[in-house]
This record gives sequence, C-alpha cells and structure tokens, in this order.
Amino acid sequence: MPSKYPEDTRILIEEGLRRYFPETRYPEEIYEAMRYSLFSGGKRFRAVLVVEAAKVFGHDPGFVLPTACAAEYIHTYSLIHDDLPAIDNDDLRRGKPTCHTVYGEDIAILAGDALYSEAFRLISGMQMADDPGIIVRVINELATASGVAGMVGGQVVDIKSEGVDIDDKTLDFIHEKKTGELIKASVRAGAILAGATGAELNLLTDYAKYLGLAFQITDDILDEVGDTAVLGKTVGSDKRQEKATYPKVHGLEVAKEMAKAMTDNAKNALRALSGDGSVLADLADFVYERNY
Amino acid sequence: MPSKYPEDTRILIEEGLRRYFPETRYPEEIYEAMRYSLFSGGKRFRAVLVVEAAKVFGHDPGFVLPTACAAEYIHTYSLIHDDLPAIDNDDLRRGKPTCHTVYGEDIAILAGDALYSEAFRLISGMQMADDPGIIVRVINELATASGVAGMVGGQVVDIKSEGVDIDDKTLDFIHEKKTGELIKASVRAGAILAGATGAELNLLTDYAKYLGLAFQITDDILDEVGDTAVLGKTVGSDKRQEKATYPKVHGLEVAKEMAKAMTDNAKNALRALSGDGSVLADLADFVYERNY
Repeated sequence: MPSKYPEDTRILIEEGLRRYFPETRYPEEIYEAMRYSLFSGGKRFRAVLVVEAAKVFGHDPGFVLPTACAAEYIHTYSLIHDDLPAIDNDDLRRGKPTCHTVYGEDIAILAGDALYSEAFRLISGMQMADDPGIIVRVINELATASGVAGMVGGQVVDIKSEGVDIDDKTLDFIHEKKTGELIKASVRAGAILAGATGAELNLLTDYAKYLGLAFQITDDILDEVGDTAVLGKTVGSDKRQEKATYPKVHGLEVAKEMAKAMTDNAKNALRALSGDGSVLADLADFVYERNY
Repeated sequence: MPSKYPEDTRILIEEGLRRYFPETRYPEEIYEAMRYSLFSGGKRFRAVLVVEAAKVFGHDPGFVLPTACAAEYIHTYSLIHDDLPAIDNDDLRRGKPTCHTVYGEDIAILAGDALYSEAFRLISGMQMADDPGIIVRVINELATASGVAGMVGGQVVDIKSEGVDIDDKTLDFIHEKKTGELIKASVRAGAILAGATGAELNLLTDYAKYLGLAFQITDDILDEVGDTAVLGKTVGSDKRQEKATYPKVHGLEVAKEMAKAMTDNAKNALRALSGDGSVLADLADFVYERNY
C-alpha cells in the first residue's frame, strides 16, 4: 500500500467485517460465496471513507464501523452482479475467479442479493437509542445511492453504451451514478453519524463528488495502462467490451489532466472544514497516484 | 376476488404503489422494467398483511402504507430474480411474460436490485419524528427476512433440491425461509408500527408462521391441480423442474389436510388478541380456499 492510504483504518475495517459477518449456517454454500467475494482483498475504499469522514469530527471509529462495513457489503454486492455473464461477463476480480465462476450464476446472483440485505440488517441492528433518526437517514442515503437513481441507473446506461459512441455528458452520467453516488453516500454517512452540520456536510459532499470522479477516471486509465497482476482484474476489459471510458472519449493525456483537476478540487473542498481533513486529502492523493 | 379478501385494502395498496413509485427518469428502460413487474397484478398479499396487522390495533392504514408497499417491492424483486434463466428459468408470471423475457436478463437482474433498494429507500423516507426507532426495527425485520437467513437461504436450498429426494424437514426449511419469513415480517412490521406489545406481537408472529405454511402448501397444491389461466403461471412447473413440493413429499390428500390444519392454527393464534383479528382470520380462510 502507498504510504498515503490509512492502513490502520483498513485493518480496523477488516476486523469489523470479520466480526459482523454472520456465522455460517445451513445452507453453507451461500455463506461461502458471500465470504469468498467479501474477503477477497480490496482497498475497502468506501468503508475507509465512512470512518475517515466521521473522524474529521473527532468521532470514535468503532461507532461508525457497522455502517462502514455495510458500505463494503453494498460495493461487493454490486461487483458480484456486475461481473455476471448477463452483465459484464468478467472472469477475474481482485486477482481471483469471479463469484459466478466459482459458485455458479444462480448462487452468485443470490450471494449479491444476500450481501445487499446484510448491509441494511447491519446498519439497522446498530444500538443508538439516543438518536435512531440518524440511522434512518444513513439507510436512506445508502439505499438511494445504490438504487435506480444511483448505482443501478449508472450501470444500465453503462450496459447500453457498449459498442456505441457516447458523448461526454453520458460518460459523466455513467460514472457519477455507477461509482460516484456510493462514494458520496459513504462520506456523507460517516459525517451524518458524527453529527456534521449542514455547511460541513455540504463541503464533504463536494469533496466526495470530485473524489468519485477522480476515482473513476483513474480506474479507466488503469484499465488502459495498468498491470493485470497488480490490478487483480483483466486489463483492457473495458476496451474489449467497447465500454465508454474517459481515455476513449477524451484521450489518455486529457484523462490524466482531468483526474489531476478533480483531485485538486476534492482537496480544495476540504479547506473550509473546521475539523482535520488531512487524511481525506491524503485519500484524494492516493486515488490520483494509485496503480491498483 | 373471493369475498374474504379485503379488496378495499388491496385498492389502497395499488394507490400507494402508484403514488410512491419514483417518477421515470433517464434511463427510462429500468423504470419501465421495474413498473412492468410491480404493476402486473397480484393479490398484494404481503402488503395487505402489513396494513391489516396494523389495523388490529386501530391504526390508520395510511400511516403504514409506505412499509406495506416496501414489502410488495421486496416480493416483486424476489420473483424477478427467481424467474431468471440461471435460477428457475420461468417464462410466465401473473399471466404475462417474465421480466427477463421482455427486458433481457441484464435489465431484469438490475430491476430486481433496484426494487429492493427502493423498498429501503421508501421506509427510511417515512416521516416519524416522534419514534424513528420503530422504523429502524421494521427495516431490520424486512432485511433479515429477505436475507441469507431468510428468503435467500430458502431459495438456495430450493435450487439445490431440484431432482433430489428430500425429507420433510428440508421441505419445511425451504418454505419457511423462502415464503414464510417475508410473510411473517410483513405481519410483524404492521404490528410494530402500530405499537403492538410483546405478547400481542408473539400471537401475531404465531399467526403469520402458520399462515405462511398454509400459503406455501396451497401454492404447491395449485401447481399440481390449478388452472394456468387462473393462476397466471405455468401449472406443473414445479414438477417439470423436479422441485420439492408438499404434494410430492406427502401426497396430495395429506397436503390438503396439512393446509387445513395450518389454517386452523393460524386462526387459533388470533383468539387471544385484544384487538379485532377478524380480517386476518378471513385472510387465513382465503389462503386455504383460493384457486390462484
């Protein structure tokens, strides 16, 4: 991991995921498939954002850990469904065969479904007798971000854009929805749980919006120029599927400049925060500089 | 509809579904696919249970309507995913081609996903400033019922039992989880929102447990002896897929007796309720007597 990634937080999240994940019961196979995809490495980027956004307000990370893990469940669910033969038909994810390759399409569909329900079960199981209203708000943020006006909507346009020449507005829509909304909701969820005020929540929302764009642009760039061994997924799969990408629409050099500009915008949004935004700024740098 | 079905409540739910369903935006196709499956008729059985369970405690049905509609979203999502080629591979549902037959597998997977998120978005969007804690409880009930220890777990065992001789314990597991848990959670959600006490909640939970079993046994019987035109789905599809069913494991006559016994048990559980359980008792009779 590059030094700018908050490794201590990532470890905390791995521990949380292991602690909260339901004990294996009958039928074992579905728990195995869920675990297989959930514990296949990954940066835990969305969960890290939940925790680090809460820490800006001096909040105890343990308190937001269930929500952080829920964001990771949602992300994993979306990857399992994206990889399905009927959707992106990807064989490799995080350096391992995809869920449906190992467990079959039927179990993979259901493992995704189950991880998604587990996310809401986990958040709604949090003990917060003093203010359950903020749990309801966080659930609303995550359900909206992952729903038809968010992740699903972006995925639909992505699918429909394969092999089609699309304009930059459509490309922005795909990425804002497919990747951006959950990144934004993760940052907002952490901040909301930590009691962020309207103005500070707005600053963090701006940060998250630019961070999400930078993340997606670098993701596209890595698909062009990255190393399959380091990335853990097949390089060039976007091109193979004639996917809309930033390098394809804007060219590689312009895409790199865009990623840099979005990273700077994200960091600028943190300046007016009353709390310490330095880890979030480091995360923006990490996104720009990453090679996986 | 037979006279015992609360038609006024069903109409209220249809209105609620139309009111709460999100306005169509870009990309239109996914909203269309969601609507196609959600508005394809159906008894709205789970939503009716939410409303009628709340009404036992003299509660205004309008108040629990978002949760009732959410239960229907969850049910519809599960049907779309069950019907997929990789799972049950069914072409017909409620007398119409299934979602994937019309919109393709990719859109059907995503329409199911989106309906599921919409359920949690809808409940968490309810305004209940006086007691958001009960919204959190209801979300927990529905997420648990539809998750790996509920609906998904039952579906997995169902899939794995095709073409296999199974014992009655396994059959009970499949149906308790696949159908029973969401029926139980629907009854409980309505009661919890209406402020049911522990003892009354227990009585309704017993009612719902037996109702769910009666429902599944009659469902299996209808698949053997029902009329495709009335049912709106292909009769004999369980047998074709070598599915475990009550008539297959116990014989048709014993299955009919079991359905009757479960119906009586359900009605008996209502006797000690302080409120009026007559509509819930009628619903149990409806389940036993239905031909669709």
